Amino acid sequence: MNNFHAVVTITLRKGILDVQGKTVEHALHSSSFSSLSNVRIGKHVEMNVVADSEESAFTQIDAACKALIANPIIEDYHITLHKTEVA
Amino acid sequence: MNNFHAVVTITLRKGILDVQGKTVEHALHSSSFSSLSNVRIGKHVEMNVVADSEESAFTQIDAACKALIANPIIEDYHITLHKTEVA
Repeated sequence: MNNFHAVVTITLRKGILDVQGKTVEHALHSSSFSSLSNVRIGKHVEMNVVADSEESAFTQIDAACKALIANPIIEDYHITLHKTEVA
Repeated sequence: MNNFHAVVTITLRKGILDVQGKTVEHALHSSSFSSLSNVRIGKHVEMNVVADSEESAFTQIDAACKALIANPIIEDYHITLHKTEVA
């Protein structure tokens, strides 16, 4: 079995209104950061995975994203895997 | 003036208990994703910046992170900048 470190970046799909991002953008503009725009806020999820192969690790994380971590109806997600030390 | 696209990744500092991550980890283990562990959840913030130079863009985003976007007491943040089309 191999150990992997995974990073999942979850972003709201284009066209979906980002209420949190808009709120932060308004706060930035009120705080004299007027050169920043189009703020969009997503999630950055890190985890460790134990799997036979990189393919198996990817499949497990993809299934976990679909089932629990992301909301595929309104969010896109991107998975990055790195092999780490053997347990 | 140049346009830049910035990605800020905000993570909880090591040693800070990640309650959200632990909750997701327990939910994963209850949903037969037992090979996933050490789940930690951070934020992924994207924005556009207008600035004279990359240094100026970085300085503005760094100031915005310290003031508003991140909580430097419990969070680390990492800024990535890419130059985009001229406005």
